[in-house]
Amino acid sequence: MSRYLNSRYAEMEAYVPGEQPRDKKYIKLNTNESPFPPSRSVLEAIDRAVIEDLRLYCDPTCRALREKLGEIYSVSPDCVYLAGGSDDILNFAFMAFGEKGSVYPAISYGFYSVFAALHGSAAEEIPLEDDLSIDPSKYYGKNKLVVIANPNAPTGLLLGLDAIEQIVVSNPDGVVVIDEAYIDFGGESALPLIEKYDNLLVVRTYSKSRSMAGARLGFAFGSPELIADLEKLKYSTNPYNVNAMTQAVGLAALCEDDYYMQNCRTIIENREYTATELRRLGFTVTDSKTNFVFAKTDKMSGAELYRRLREEGILVRHFSTPEICEYNRITVGTLDDMKATVSAIKKILELE
Amino acid sequence: MSRYLNSRYAEMEAYVPGEQPRDKKYIKLNTNESPFPPSRSVLEAIDRAVIEDLRLYCDPTCRALREKLGEIYSVSPDCVYLAGGSDDILNFAFMAFGEKGSVYPAISYGFYSVFAALHGSAAEEIPLEDDLSIDPSKYYGKNKLVVIANPNAPTGLLLGLDAIEQIVVSNPDGVVVIDEAYIDFGGESALPLIEKYDNLLVVRTYSKSRSMAGARLGFAFGSPELIADLEKLKYSTNPYNVNAMTQAVGLAALCEDDYYMQNCRTIIENREYTATELRRLGFTVTDSKTNFVFAKTDKMSGAELYRRLREEGILVRHFSTPEICEYNRITVGTLDDMKATVSAIKKILELE
Repeated sequence: MSRYLNSRYAEMEAYVPGEQPRDKKYIKLNTNESPFPPSRSVLEAIDRAVIEDLRLYCDPTCRALREKLGEIYSVSPDCVYLAGGSDDILNFAFMAFGEKGSVYPAISYGFYSVFAALHGSAAEEIPLEDDLSIDPSKYYGKNKLVVIANPNAPTGLLLGLDAIEQIVVSNPDGVVVIDEAYIDFGGESALPLIEKYDNLLVVRTYSKSRSMAGARLGFAFGSPELIADLEKLKYSTNPYNVNAMTQAVGLAALCEDDYYMQNCRTIIENREYTATELRRLGFTVTDSKTNFVFAKTDKMSGAELYRRLREEGILVRHFSTPEICEYNRITVGTLDDMKATVSAIKKILELE
Repeated sequence: MSRYLNSRYAEMEAYVPGEQPRDKKYIKLNTNESPFPPSRSVLEAIDRAVIEDLRLYCDPTCRALREKLGEIYSVSPDCVYLAGGSDDILNFAFMAFGEKGSVYPAISYGFYSVFAALHGSAAEEIPLEDDLSIDPSKYYGKNKLVVIANPNAPTGLLLGLDAIEQIVVSNPDGVVVIDEAYIDFGGESALPLIEKYDNLLVVRTYSKSRSMAGARLGFAFGSPELIADLEKLKYSTNPYNVNAMTQAVGLAALCEDDYYMQNCRTIIENREYTATELRRLGFTVTDSKTNFVFAKTDKMSGAELYRRLREEGILVRHFSTPEICEYNRITVGTLDDMKATVSAIKKILELE
């Protein structure tokens, strides 16, 4: 740190992304990426014209993408916002709507607390229930920025649409952000509610179900007024935050949505296989509706199992937070990846 | 605007990018883009492997790019910072180093005042001299964040390295940002000074001399401590702000730097052609060391000439700021573009 850094940020803790070790080849199940590559249309999206046009600024309004997303999700393009990954959107959401404070589950996506600190939004972190679920009633009447990952991470647990609607209804003076990074793996989206409620922002990402974590593309749905607020912040920081190549691949992917939705079904199958196998080995496994399983065993600590899997060439994510330190979060990869993981766990625990 | 927007941002004015009209095909000389496409290596940089790996998060440390830039510019990789365009870097610089206030020329890149307002940095805007130049002594001893575009925009005028060094030396308790977006068109970079001064940040972009405005890639050089501060803000907002495709094309471009430097020489020739022709038509033309000329005539107002050129299918940039409202900023394109522009001006002004 230099002596010049703004005192406001000096003590702040930054987000720590999942590790990307280079010491050997791992089965990489630690950052919830898709095991499937982008679709054929994406392979062909970056043609000579796109590269030659890189000399020009990209379209800051992302018009083509907004229109296509509007078409697919049956909303008006002025209810669609695009940015460089859902992190970019969540950052702007805390910046725009966190002035009166923010509320989110104490166990959830680790970036929420970073954004709250960054933007000086007084944070209320609500503990999960003993079964790791979210009690929606604890988010009623806050009238601050309420942020719920649905399904939640790293627990994988889903709230139903009724519960989400109750949270939105009960916070008319605060924006409710539903972070649906994992919604395509078995949840029901809150998207239809944006027509009824002007305080709801639904945030999505290309990083999980659309196999494009490395392209950095996120999108959000909300009332035209909420979207205009986010646009204003974008035009005050980096108007061209979705570059020309990202716009091209993002649009191409939408033309082959069936491919991605089929991949989601495969991942759901592989998740259920993994959960069933781990339960058979005595693990406690949450009812995940995401592309990861969250599991613990009483035969070995979470930290130790993480370490032993790493030695076996399998990278999963372990969190040291006391309430969940016995668990590991295991991204769902291909069936072969998951069979290898189950085998490694059997070997490590000396089962069968 | 929604009623939920943070009051801090409600009154703020966002940046207004140069217009991108779609009503007809223009000779586009309004946003200082390069008339030359990226190099051959960039055309080939996005191969199947890059697209297939989009399923994975990109390298948040941009290791390969930092190392290559370090090699080309003879600095250690830990003195190099990368982000999504130089706007992204300038935004972080105001955020990180603007706490005690910020100082910049009253006529300069329009985004500085937006960033200052966004981050609550009390701004001192120092008027230009009557000849539109910057008097470096007016920036001595400020000990706040000092931001100088060198060459300055939209005037095109360059400060010498001695003048820059004096500003840096005289502000030991403030960070001095030298925004070198246009340095490759004839200026001397302040880069060698970063070894002597820990309060200097030199900011560069791929958008101008490297023909990649649409890829959004900027880089900066400074002491490891300043770079660490910027990294901290990056990891607190959007750690993956340079996506995998941008990293790939950015790296590829650096392998053909001769191509870009030759393009810069061509643009300098075209600039001098344009300036000479306009002076011959009685224009006042600044001694631009950038990829644009800044010119006015006493035969027609700046606003009117802008409008008439637009009718002729030539898009330039006009600023309504009183001190420079008689000028137009004309990006230097190909020689054909510039000949067409000079001809159009002759026609509009009924000269020859």
